[in-house]
Parts: sequence; C-alpha cells; structure tokens
Amino acid sequence: MNAQRDYADLVQRGLSLDLTRGKPSPRQLDLSNDMLRLPASYRAADGTDGRNYGNLQGLAELRELFAPLLQVPAAQLVVGGNASLAMMHDTVVHALLSTVPGAVRRWVEEPEITFLCPVPGYDRHFTICERLGIRMVPVPMGADGPDMDVVERLVAADASVKGIWCVPKYSNPSGIVYSDETVRRLAAMETAAPDFRIFWDNAYAVHHLTDTPAELADLLALCAEHGHADRAFVYGSTSKVTLAGSGVAFFGSSPDNVAWFLANTGKQSIGPDKLNQLRHVEFLRDAEGVAAHMRRHAELIWPKFELVDRVLAKELGGLATWTSPRGGYFISLEVPHAGEVVAKAKAAGIALTPAGATHPYGTDPADSTIRIAPTYPDLEELEQAIAGLAVCVRLVAEERG
Amino acid sequence: MNAQRDYADLVQRGLSLDLTRGKPSPRQLDLSNDMLRLPASYRAADGTDGRNYGNLQGLAELRELFAPLLQVPAAQLVVGGNASLAMMHDTVVHALLSTVPGAVRRWVEEPEITFLCPVPGYDRHFTICERLGIRMVPVPMGADGPDMDVVERLVAADASVKGIWCVPKYSNPSGIVYSDETVRRLAAMETAAPDFRIFWDNAYAVHHLTDTPAELADLLALCAEHGHADRAFVYGSTSKVTLAGSGVAFFGSSPDNVAWFLANTGKQSIGPDKLNQLRHVEFLRDAEGVAAHMRRHAELIWPKFELVDRVLAKELGGLATWTSPRGGYFISLEVPHAGEVVAKAKAAGIALTPAGATHPYGTDPADSTIRIAPTYPDLEELEQAIAGLAVCVRLVAEERG
Repeated sequence: MNAQRDYADLVQRGLSLDLTRGKPSPRQLDLSNDMLRLPASYRAADGTDGRNYGNLQGLAELRELFAPLLQVPAAQLVVGGNASLAMMHDTVVHALLSTVPGAVRRWVEEPEITFLCPVPGYDRHFTICERLGIRMVPVPMGADGPDMDVVERLVAADASVKGIWCVPKYSNPSGIVYSDETVRRLAAMETAAPDFRIFWDNAYAVHHLTDTPAELADLLALCAEHGHADRAFVYGSTSKVTLAGSGVAFFGSSPDNVAWFLANTGKQSIGPDKLNQLRHVEFLRDAEGVAAHMRRHAELIWPKFELVDRVLAKELGGLATWTSPRGGYFISLEVPHAGEVVAKAKAAGIALTPAGATHPYGTDPADSTIRIAPTYPDLEELEQAIAGLAVCVRLVAEERG
Repeated sequence: MNAQRDYADLVQRGLSLDLTRGKPSPRQLDLSNDMLRLPASYRAADGTDGRNYGNLQGLAELRELFAPLLQVPAAQLVVGGNASLAMMHDTVVHALLSTVPGAVRRWVEEPEITFLCPVPGYDRHFTICERLGIRMVPVPMGADGPDMDVVERLVAADASVKGIWCVPKYSNPSGIVYSDETVRRLAAMETAAPDFRIFWDNAYAVHHLTDTPAELADLLALCAEHGHADRAFVYGSTSKVTLAGSGVAFFGSSPDNVAWFLANTGKQSIGPDKLNQLRHVEFLRDAEGVAAHMRRHAELIWPKFELVDRVLAKELGGLATWTSPRGGYFISLEVPHAGEVVAKAKAAGIALTPAGATHPYGTDPADSTIRIAPTYPDLEELEQAIAGLAVCVRLVAEERG
C-alpha cells in the first residue's frame, strides 16, 4: 500500500463529508413526521388546557412514560424545554447562585469549584465548566466506566470537587456502559464535599442498536440506599428519539433537589411548552411505543456502525483500535497523532470533531482520540468518509514512521 | 348602601373567581388552534431541515417578521424558547457570570448590583432580582413612564446601578405607554456605570385594544444615536399572540450585545425549537397577519376592559382611581388599604394578585395598588368579580372610616 498516493487520490476527489456531530439523519427524523400533525387534543390527562401557561414540572402523563426509562420516579422528574444541555447548564448556574441542598454556601462563593471529567468525554459538558469557571480534572475511562480508584481518591481528598460528568450508557464517545459495580461505587463513595453531585447525563438511555439492550444500575436508588440521597442529578431527552431540535428534556433527582430545582426554574419561566409534551405522549404512547420506535432508529443506524467497524478492520487492522458500541451515537477511534490525522482528513474534505475535543480544555495529552459520528451521512458517504479517514491514519503512520 | 350587608351577601354566594394572572382565555387560545396542525413544511426558507439541531439565533424568516414589530433589525434579533422571562433571567445570569460589553468585570464580582424598578411594575421582574441578589430601588411611574428626573439622578450618582426594568408599552400593570421624551431621556442620560442596561420588556408591543395603536419611540436606535449603542436589551414574545405556553420569545440588542448573548447561550443549548418557529411563520405570515390576529384578540378582550371600567365607575366613583388602558393585559386600581381589600376579596372567593406584588420585595409603601387581570374570566364571571371587589373596597373604606 502506498499511503501517499492514496491520499493524493483522496484529495483529488474533492469530497465534502461531515462526521463531526451526533445528528440524526433525515431518514431517522422522518420516523417522527407524524408529530407535525399532533397533538390531536390540547387537553392534558388531568383536564387542564395544555395551550395556556403553567405546570412548571411538566405533564404527569409524560413523566410517567419516561420515569421507568430514566430510572427516576415520576414525582421526581421534571420536563424542560428542547435541550437537556440547557437543564445541565442551568443546574450548574443554580448551584453557583443558590445554595444546593447540603451545601454550606453558594458555589460562586467557593474559592474553587472542581469537576471530574472522565475522558474521553462529551465536549459540551466541558464547555459548560469552562464558561462557568469550573476547574476540570480528567479521569481515565475504562471498559466499565471511569477509573473508580482515581475517582474515590480525588473526591475524598479535595472538598473543592463538587461534581463529576457521566454519560453512563453508550457513553459519548466511547460507547461503553458503566458496570453495576461502577455505579454502586459512585453512589457509595465518601466525598469531602457535602454537596458533591453526579451529573448523570443518560442521553442514550433507550438508544440500543442490538437485541440485547444494556442494563444500567439505578443510580438514584443506590445513592439513597447509601445515605447520599441528594447526590445524583439525572438528565435525559428525546432529542435523539423524536426530533432533534424539537424534543423534550428531563431532569430527575431526589425530592429535595427537585424542590430546589423547581424553586429556581420557577423564577426563570412560567412553565414549559406543554403542547410539545402532549405531542410526545400521543406519538410515543408508552414504554413499548418508545422501544418500537427506537428499533426503527436502530434499523437505520446499526448498518452504519457495522460499516465503520468493517472498513476500519479492513484498512487499519493493527494500526489502530476503536470501540464497537451496541448503542448510542459514537465510535471512538484511538490512533497515534490524532491531531495530524484530523488535519489531513480536513484537507481532504472530511470534517471530524477536532482532536482533543473529547478532553477538558480541548487537550488530549496522548493525542490519540478521534470521535466518529456515523449517524448523519448515508451509507455511501459514510463508506467514503471512513475509507478516507483510514487513508489519513495510514499516511500519518507512514510519515511518522 | 350598606357595605357590610353587601359583603355578607357576597361571601354567602360562595364565588370562586380568579383575577390573578394575565392569562389569555380559552376563546383567545382558540384563535390559534390551526397551529396544532402546523408546520405544513419542516423546511426553513434557506432550505435547512427545521427538525434537526442547530440555528442558535433562530430562523431568519421569523426574525424578519418580528423585527419591525419589536423595533430591532432582524440581524440583531434572537429567537429563544417559549418564555421571554427565561431570556431576561438568563441575560442577568450571563451578566453575572460573563463580562457584558463595556463592563470592567463580571457583575458577580461587584460589591453590589442595583436595578431601578419603576412602580407599580411586574412582579416576575422583581423576583428575578431577588433571586439573584440584586438590590432593587423603586422609581415612581407617571402617565408617561418612570419619573425621569429620579432615574437620571440615580443612574448618575451610583455606579452600582446597572439596570432598569421597563414595560414600555401598555405597561404591566398600569397600562401606560412611555412617551417619546421618556424614551429619549433613557437613551441619552449619562450613567455612572459604563455597563448600565435597560431591560426593555416590550411584552405588549402589538397588543392594542383600540383602533388607535400606541406608538413607541425606537429605543435601540435612540441609544445608538446618543452614543450608548449597547445600553438596551429588548425582549418580546408571542405568548399572548399565539399560545401562552407554546409561543416563541425574542431578544434584541446591539451587534456586540447579541454576539455576547449568543456566545453564552451557545454553551447552554444547541439551538431552539425551529418547528415551533416555522409554525409561527406559517400561521402569522407577516406583519399584517399579526395585526389581523391581534384585532381578533381585541374583540374578545376589549369588552372586558370596558366592563371593568363601567362597573368600577358605577360602584366606586370617588372612592378609588384606576387606569383605562388601550392595550395590554392589566388595569391598575388605586385604593386605600389595598392589602385589606385583597384579603376581604379572598375571603369572598375572589383571588387577586397579592397587594404589594407590583412593588419590589412585595411591599407597596402606600398600600394602594391592586392589579386587575381581566382577560381570563368570561364576561359574566368578570362582572361578578369586579362587583365583588367593589364591595370589598367599600367595606374597607367604611370600616376605616
């Protein structure tokens, strides 16, 4: 194989392909087009008019539908707007500006706030920290979740450690699932900070790609069991279930945390868009409706994950490693000199998330992680993009000897 | 007239009426029921897929539609979620946590932040300040807006004064409209704080009730003209145009402020619900479509305002004063011992916004302002409620001599 000649051919072809963001494809969005004609009725189950103001916590019927899927009792679930990211961001803002249950003061009055960031992780979590002046400490991820020895040591030693970001199921970007033991240790561990919180971004709770769905231990229940009832902030959304820009987001936690959250959001809004909540209830109906809908997504997505795996195995066997997730939206490719590979790909018209984006401050010390988002392109484009990416990996390997 | 006997009769009737919040009536919401079947197309005017992520600033066609109505160039308008209150709250949060253009530091680092609050005013503005630890200083309102002599003196003397809340058209709750001279003086005045901002909540921009719509001077243009381009934050929403819980909100300002706002919200969200934006564009079409729609609202609301005026005149001539707004959602009733009147009304099953709510910290020093929200009840209920309220006013006047 001559990587230089292959790369010259690749550039010659003038591709324009995008593997950057975890966006659903148009065919996935088509699965929810019936929602554009809903809701059939603007009445909530309790008879209230879904068109008017009010209902800060969100409709009971929607909370009941998603409660088991997100492992949060319906009474402790809050429905927000179209972005769980906004609920995460706003939770941190609330904690900065209003004392969270168990805290001695508002976080903005602390000399320093630190969050643990399992890496590789989700760049938008890190952006929230960076924007809000929160120091980030990376923690290595393994096949079962973050290295819990490291986590336990850090939270016990340093009272400035107030939070940890987790994508526990089909993690972004590695696709791994936290083991029961990891979840248990997160719930049980002793922390120096009395107001330590786990930001549990269960973004891919129902996003299975195979017939053997991953099971996740119940963090909220485990926290309560270990005497840390207020430790977990749980998030979820339907952005990758129904319509990416027009989904509904969820926040779930202990009763005290939910009261605190609602007291704060009650000063921000008179209530969420309940017609969109009704649209979701009418369209998804129940847990089986969600599961059936997610199987239709999987039929469209799984061939793309298989394709990436196949092309990488064919082109890069021995030169790189990558994950083979059974759910979620991402594949994590580990190669030497990731930054150079991404730059070469960009020059050949293949856009990838910047190398380092999976790490705090955009810096991957090993310069090795590339996040692949295979859902948006069609199969033909995806094959071209991954084959092209493989050429770039081979070229950099050759140039670097 | 025997007020005690009338009050005993009133209590006897066991009413349950609510004049607390400015909510549209079901018949007003019916005017927008066609939206429940929209959008007909999920494509934005630029061809992008409105179902997917993205477009932080909002659809150009919706910004162009509302730009003239809110007196903000479309390029400087941002479309948010369903609540302009959230955009106001979040702007203050952004200013607390990220340095606003022209500021020397983040507001959270200032020893004290003060906002001027024209009174009577909107309780939810005051709640935002109270929640975020911002000191409030009341400023008396006149028929043309806040007393500008007081405003000019306070902003010139005290660098901690960083903001003023304004509902400039059909003000909440008095219904007055800021005169051109008031707007000009707000734009022109010298402020001790380099980062002083006018929070211009133009909630009732198109909410005319008569054939002679109020005209408001263009604050944004006047600020730029007087060398204070970054002074105005403008807000609006369709909550009382289309569907109260499912409208779209707007933020408008100078190019520098908009860039600052988007840089902050870009860390909070991947983008707004664009299908709801398309719904609005398809349903309202253009400025004339908005005007025609608002005339249909006025046909339902104006008889209620007339009724309140008529009943108050008949029952309370000489005992009280009240406003007769030509737009908006509220009537302001001025009576002695407002707190007692509200308590008597409550005991008779007529719920009113707590006396004092129109003032910072819930305290009306003169104990005189009662906010009447006449839109939600039907005419018969409204007549009962206002007649009952009048009985309470007479009773308190008699008891207090």
